[in-house]
Amino acid sequence: MGEIVFVGLGLNDEKGISLRGLEEAKTADKVFIELYTSLLPDLSLKRLEAFCGKQLHVLSRKELEEKNGEIILKVAEKGKTVLFVPGDPLIATTHVALRMEAEKRKIQTRIIHGASVLSAIMGLSGLHNYKFGKTVTIPFPDETPSDTPYQVISQNQSLGLHTLCLLDIKTEEKRYLNIHDALDSLLNVEAKKRKKIVTQETLALGVARAGSNRPVVKADFVKELQNYDFGNPPYSLVFPGKLHFMEAEALICFAEAPEEIREDVE
Amino acid sequence: MGEIVFVGLGLNDEKGISLRGLEEAKTADKVFIELYTSLLPDLSLKRLEAFCGKQLHVLSRKELEEKNGEIILKVAEKGKTVLFVPGDPLIATTHVALRMEAEKRKIQTRIIHGASVLSAIMGLSGLHNYKFGKTVTIPFPDETPSDTPYQVISQNQSLGLHTLCLLDIKTEEKRYLNIHDALDSLLNVEAKKRKKIVTQETLALGVARAGSNRPVVKADFVKELQNYDFGNPPYSLVFPGKLHFMEAEALICFAEAPEEIREDVE
Repeated sequence: MGEIVFVGLGLNDEKGISLRGLEEAKTADKVFIELYTSLLPDLSLKRLEAFCGKQLHVLSRKELEEKNGEIILKVAEKGKTVLFVPGDPLIATTHVALRMEAEKRKIQTRIIHGASVLSAIMGLSGLHNYKFGKTVTIPFPDETPSDTPYQVISQNQSLGLHTLCLLDIKTEEKRYLNIHDALDSLLNVEAKKRKKIVTQETLALGVARAGSNRPVVKADFVKELQNYDFGNPPYSLVFPGKLHFMEAEALICFAEAPEEIREDVE
Repeated sequence: MGEIVFVGLGLNDEKGISLRGLEEAKTADKVFIELYTSLLPDLSLKRLEAFCGKQLHVLSRKELEEKNGEIILKVAEKGKTVLFVPGDPLIATTHVALRMEAEKRKIQTRIIHGASVLSAIMGLSGLHNYKFGKTVTIPFPDETPSDTPYQVISQNQSLGLHTLCLLDIKTEEKRYLNIHDALDSLLNVEAKKRKKIVTQETLALGVARAGSNRPVVKADFVKELQNYDFGNPPYSLVFPGKLHFMEAEALICFAEAPEEIREDVE
């Protein structure tokens, strides 16, 4: 009986894998890796291969999505297969679909979790995790302009909740939506809606390379963040809802937020 | 210049730590560990100590909260200190407070992220991560009865969103709120409010030991879940909002949800 073990690689490089994840890879008949759903900025495939003691098969989007992961399923029908996935696995729908197909074919599946950007941003920000509402991805404005991120921020704000915005990536083209352009895209929706949800004076938190050795975590008003140098991708944004005074202190301490945010806390 | 490195231990045992986390511990002058904010069901302190090649100082709640982590700060003022934390660090406010105090004393802080129950439950359930609303903790009903969890589920439901409910734990007393009692507590609020938010016929997902080798993941109506044997702690609950048809399929496939949930999807 075969199996697929989905192993999370965490957020940054080959050392984000857990000891258990590595152990699973060492005892696998074949190890695949998928690197297009997220960017691991400092990953060395060679060093990861050395850790596992085996060659990794890098899956293309085509192999996983158009061909429904048949290449993995074929191996998994007979033996133990590991699929390395950035972050915590089974967050992307692609992997959920693969897992469902495997289960239908009586291939066992297991998950070895890894660090996810969802909790990493909460930890880096010092904002309270139970005050985050719905998460949203901001798409490239030139491709799929959308009012959804603005509306999600608006809805969360009306409930006093924080919004985590993931910024779109096209890893295969090495394109990463940056914080400046993501904010522009929200300001453009603001110009139409005029609900004062994301203005030049709105407080936001920009994060670059969460989980790396040198993440950049900067809170400021939108007009300031647009000119801030966050360095290399990947990026995320948080729009805080109503701040508890401890959250304001955390943003000032960990993210150099302007001290005047103390004036508007609960 | 000293520093504190917060290292996440993930969800289950000593093998949930990342390679980088272990590396940080090996090169630390002193390694502390905190084990009361979450339960790592299969942790062996001895094996973790063997991995690190050093003795671990297990912190009590008193040392960390009443005495504000002074014991860590003292060491960190002079050398490299690692603090092991279950899950992904800096999610609990206790650790945020410690990190702020360290930064005030010019002690550098860094975070090595670990797997968190927040993303793990999303992955195990197959539910879409961007459809989760605010998270809530269900407290022990005999100690701090609260309508808050019910209200959070209600609010999320009205927005079509899923609710992740963490179940309270008192690790020092080895007490863990179980799924049966958590559901009872919600049904008691329902009996007062009568808004049909959590009834015997409501679909929910119970999860035990997320991140372990044998997590139990079971979706069913509340009346059925109350009699389901989830085994040992820790536990979580999810109340799904409006289901996409792929989410319903995932719940049926991964969590043995009743097939009739297919009839009410979008």
